[in-house]
Amino acid sequence: MSELTGPVQIIGTGLLGTSIGLALRRAGMDVLLADASADHLRTASGLGAGRVAATGDRPQLVVVAVPPDSLGHVISRALETTDAVVTDVGSVKTRPLSVVDHVAGIERYVGSHPMAGSERSGPLAASAALFDGRPWAVTPHDGSDPDAVELVEQLATLCGAVPVRLTPAEHDRAVAHTSHVPHLLSSLVAGQLLDAPREHLSLSGQGVRDVTRIAAGDPALYAQIVSANSDQVLALLLSVRDRLDDVIAALDGGDRDALDEVLRAGVAGTRAIPGKHGGPPRATESLYVAVPDHPGELARLFADAGDSGVNIEDVHIDHDPGRPVGLLELTVEEGRAEHLIASLEAKGWVTHR
Amino acid sequence: MSELTGPVQIIGTGLLGTSIGLALRRAGMDVLLADASADHLRTASGLGAGRVAATGDRPQLVVVAVPPDSLGHVISRALETTDAVVTDVGSVKTRPLSVVDHVAGIERYVGSHPMAGSERSGPLAASAALFDGRPWAVTPHDGSDPDAVELVEQLATLCGAVPVRLTPAEHDRAVAHTSHVPHLLSSLVAGQLLDAPREHLSLSGQGVRDVTRIAAGDPALYAQIVSANSDQVLALLLSVRDRLDDVIAALDGGDRDALDEVLRAGVAGTRAIPGKHGGPPRATESLYVAVPDHPGELARLFADAGDSGVNIEDVHIDHDPGRPVGLLELTVEEGRAEHLIASLEAKGWVTHR
Repeated sequence: MSELTGPVQIIGTGLLGTSIGLALRRAGMDVLLADASADHLRTASGLGAGRVAATGDRPQLVVVAVPPDSLGHVISRALETTDAVVTDVGSVKTRPLSVVDHVAGIERYVGSHPMAGSERSGPLAASAALFDGRPWAVTPHDGSDPDAVELVEQLATLCGAVPVRLTPAEHDRAVAHTSHVPHLLSSLVAGQLLDAPREHLSLSGQGVRDVTRIAAGDPALYAQIVSANSDQVLALLLSVRDRLDDVIAALDGGDRDALDEVLRAGVAGTRAIPGKHGGPPRATESLYVAVPDHPGELARLFADAGDSGVNIEDVHIDHDPGRPVGLLELTVEEGRAEHLIASLEAKGWVTHR
Repeated sequence: MSELTGPVQIIGTGLLGTSIGLALRRAGMDVLLADASADHLRTASGLGAGRVAATGDRPQLVVVAVPPDSLGHVISRALETTDAVVTDVGSVKTRPLSVVDHVAGIERYVGSHPMAGSERSGPLAASAALFDGRPWAVTPHDGSDPDAVELVEQLATLCGAVPVRLTPAEHDRAVAHTSHVPHLLSSLVAGQLLDAPREHLSLSGQGVRDVTRIAAGDPALYAQIVSANSDQVLALLLSVRDRLDDVIAALDGGDRDALDEVLRAGVAGTRAIPGKHGGPPRATESLYVAVPDHPGELARLFADAGDSGVNIEDVHIDHDPGRPVGLLELTVEEGRAEHLIASLEAKGWVTHR
C-alpha cells in the first residue's frame, strides 16, 4: 500500500485547486502550484496554498483543477511529463477519460470529484474547510493501478472529505440525477418567472425561492459542465419530458389520478435522498418562530433553544414581505417539536407548528 | 366605510380556518365556528379559535376555509343563507367564482388567499401567528361591493397579514408562476431520483435538496389545487416544455449558446423575485461556518455573530454526510461578510467564503 507523502502538485488555482492546497498545507504536505494565470498563482501562494513549483520538483500526485473544457488536455500532459499519479476534480468523469484513454501512463490516472463548491469562484473564495464532511467521488477506470486509487482516496480523506468509489459512468449518471437535471429544471422554473408581471411576484413564497436557488449559479460554468455530461443528461431530460407530457395530458383531460401519481412519485423521491450525515433519511418535524429582524435576536433565540436540549437539524429564515419580523423555521427530530415549542413559549417567543 | 366588528363565522376548521379563528380571537373578535367534522370543530373550539355558532347568531363576515373542490358549493350556500359579506381562502380564485357567479348576493362575495401554509394540516397545526407578515391576496370580482372588499382587507390586516389586491384572473396567473409550476417541476425532479440506484444518491448535495423540498407536500391537496387552476398552469407548462425542448435540442446538437441562454434566463429569474420584506432584491453575500452538531453550538455561534453587529439575512444548514459537523451558510448584506468572518474567526470559528 502506497502512502501519500507528497509533494502534491496542483494545476489550476481557482476555488477548488486553492482549497485543496490549503487543506493539504494544513496537513503539513508539500504543495506545488501551477496556473496559466500568474495572478491566480500569486494569490494562491500568497494565501498559503503552496509554493510555485521549481526545477527538479518531482510530485508524487498531480491534481488537475482546471475548467471542464481543458481537463482532457491537461490530464494528458501531466501523465506524459511526470511519473506521478494523476487525478482531476472535474464535475464529469467519462468525457475527460475518453480523451486520455490511450495516453502512455493511463494506469496512473484516477478521476475524482469532490461534492463541494460555491456560487463564488477564484482563489480568494478558497478555504481549507471547503471539503469538510463532503462526499468526494473517486472514479477509477478499468486500468487504474490500485495503488493510484488508494493515493487519491488518501487525498480526499486528508482534505476532510469522505471518499465514495464509483465507476466513471456511474458517477456521471449519479450527478445527472442529483445535480445536472435539478439545475436545468431550476433554471426553467426561474426563467418562467420573467414572463410574469413584476407585481405578481410579490406572491412569491419560500417554495419558489427554494426551487430556484441553484439557478443563480454561473451560467458559463454550468453550460460547460452539463455539455460535458450531455449523454446522461439528455437521457434523463427525455424521460422528464415524457412525465411533463403526462402532467400536461392529465391537466388537459382532467385526469386527477395521473396527476396524483406524478405528485406521489415526487414525495417518494424526496424521501429517497439520504439524511444528514449520509445516514438513512430521518423523520423530522418543523416549527416556526417569529424573530424580530435585528442583530442579537437570533442569538437570543438559539440560546433559548439550546437550553431546551433539543438538537436543531435545520434552519430556514422565511422572507416575509411587509414587516420587520422574520419567520424562522426550525427542523428537529420527530417527536421533539412539542418540547422545544413549550420551552420557547415559556421564554416569550411566539411559535407555531 | 364599514368596519369589521364581528361576529366572523368560519366554515371549515382545518389549518387555515382554525388559524384565522385564533388570530381573530387574539384581536378580541367574536368568532363562530362550523365544520362538517364534529371532531375538528371540537378541537378548534377547544384550542380557543372561537365558539360553535348558536341559533340567532348573525355573522358580519363569513370565511369559507374548505378544500378547493368544495369551495363553490359552500360559498353559494353562505351567500344564500346569510346577509353577511362572504370570502374564502382557497388557493385558486376564478374557478369558485364561476360557480357562484349567478347566486343572489354575489356582490357580497370577495375572494381572498393568504400566502401561508405548512406541510402539516388540521386544527392541531394551527397558529394565530400563521399569517404574520405574509401577503394575503384579496381578489374582488367586477360586481364586488367596495365595502365588502374593505371588510376582507380588514380581515387580512387583523390576522397580521399584508393585503395585496389583484383580480381573480391575475391572482391565478400569479400563483401558477410562483407556486403551481414550481411545485410540479419540483415533483418531476424528485420523481426522477427514484430511477437512480440508491447508492448514487449519496452524491446529493444541498442543491437537489432545495429544489425538491416542496415536492414533499400532500399530493392529494396539490392535485386539487393544480387541477382547479388547470388553464393557467397548462399555458405555462406548455411554454416550459418548449424551453425544455430547446435545452434538449441544444444538448443534442452541442449548441452551447442556446444552453447558455436558458441558464442566463434562470439567473435573471432568480433576481426578479422580490427581496426580504417585499423590498427590491438586495445584494447579499454568503459565508460558511463549521458548527459541531450538538445543542448549544448554534447558540454560541449566533451570540458571537450578534456581537459583530452584522445582521444575518438568511441561514442554511448544509447536510454533510460523513461527519458530525454541520456547515452553516450565513447570508449577509453585500460588503458585510468580511467583517463578520474576521469577528467569528477571532472567536475561534472556522469559516470560509
